[in-house]
Amino acid sequence: MDAEKILTELGYTLPSPVKPAGSYVPALKVGNFLFLSGILPFREGNVLKKGKVGKDLSIEEAQQEAIRVVLNALAIVKDFLGNLENVKQCVKITGYIASAKDFTEQPKVLNPASELMTKIFGEKGKHCRVAVGVYNLPFDAAVEMDFIFEVK
Amino acid sequence: MDAEKILTELGYTLPSPVKPAGSYVPALKVGNFLFLSGILPFREGNVLKKGKVGKDLSIEEAQQEAIRVVLNALAIVKDFLGNLENVKQCVKITGYIASAKDFTEQPKVLNPASELMTKIFGEKGKHCRVAVGVYNLPFDAAVEMDFIFEVK
Amino acid sequence: MDAEKILTELGYTLPSPVKPAGSYVPALKVGNFLFLSGILPFREGNVLKKGKVGKDLSIEEAQQEAIRVVLNALAIVKDFLGNLENVKQCVKITGYIASAKDFTEQPKVLNPASELMTKIFGEKGKHCRVAVGVYNLPFDAAVEMDFIFEVK
Repeated sequence: MDAEKILTELGYTLPSPVKPAGSYVPALKVGNFLFLSGILPFREGNVLKKGKVGKDLSIEEAQQEAIRVVLNALAIVKDFLGNLENVKQCVKITGYIASAKDFTEQPKVLNPASELMTKIFGEKGKHCRVAVGVYNLPFDAAVEMDFIFEVK
Repeated sequence: MDAEKILTELGYTLPSPVKPAGSYVPALKVGNFLFLSGILPFREGNVLKKGKVGKDLSIEEAQQEAIRVVLNALAIVKDFLGNLENVKQCVKITGYIASAKDFTEQPKVLNPASELMTKIFGEKGKHCRVAVGVYNLPFDAAVEMDFIFEVK
Repeated sequence: MDAEKILTELGYTLPSPVKPAGSYVPALKVGNFLFLSGILPFREGNVLKKGKVGKDLSIEEAQQEAIRVVLNALAIVKDFLGNLENVKQCVKITGYIASAKDFTEQPKVLNPASELMTKIFGEKGKHCRVAVGVYNLPFDAAVEMDFIFEVK
């Protein structure tokens, strides 16, 4: 079954690809690597849940933001490659979590997003990951993620 | 017109390449990728505008710091490759912005720097970008940027 | 002399590879690149020195955490490649340092770790490096590092 069909069966729909928030491009292919710009949890042009995880957002709310980031990323990948089937591997995700003072559970915020990637792509969805807690993110988002894919 | 000539016409001069601030190398080539170490806005060996954007520096001041980072990066690229014409593509910039408590306009800080890259290199200057707000940077700099280039 | 023998002569032992702290893989090879997930200074399953450098940890203590991160990284590299001799180059290290309010000496925290890499691998150990000060890290660790290697 193809990746986008699995997404649909899981109850998700690919959103329209979000335009860059500045003077850069959303994705760039070099050799077999597809680099994405930092992806924010925009929904219809807005970041709805603003602030810091552990204070303004619960872990559960932040997990939903991270899942939205994955959907926004896949929308850009599809837009760039024409088809999610052209993904050979999700190589690496760096997750930046806007964190309250004592919040140190950044991996938990990212886990459902990482698991979604594996549900969609199977072995091709298993990736390396870096999780850090940052002070602030653009648009006061709670989660930003940076993706590297290997493509056909 | 070549990249360095455009820089001059825009009123910029390539500085001397800054030496690493620790036990690492400024740049490394692997295959067609040129990786740079994190670049700070040093001017003659010093970071002049110290502190956090949104408190100690205005957005306009931080934009000048980001432009200085690009000039310092290009000085290293030229030093390594011999000539900026050996750049095939600016692939990715990660911008770390030392941010005051409620500062969330990190993309604005980086936009003029990204635009300068495109003015100099044209299509080859269009890059992916990640912008995050961090707590502190080395030497109390306001901006640090991390670059990946594709080279000939 | 091979890398692991040098490690032993320096008084270090490779630990068991740490399992991922979430839904991701510890390492992934794409072409000649080996990407590692973010590495924390776990010792026997625990982060012993928690908190922020410049407040809860001295620079010297944080340097020991960074060295532990390198050992944990090399344990994963060995586990993945079978042998450290299959490392062709340590390409890039991004060091995230959980920093107290005014702490701006992130490079100092990473220097002994970078130097260890060069002692072990010689020229192959010389790498690009990015050092940033972040607000919080998973498990309240003081140091997290992200590695890219070139492999045979």
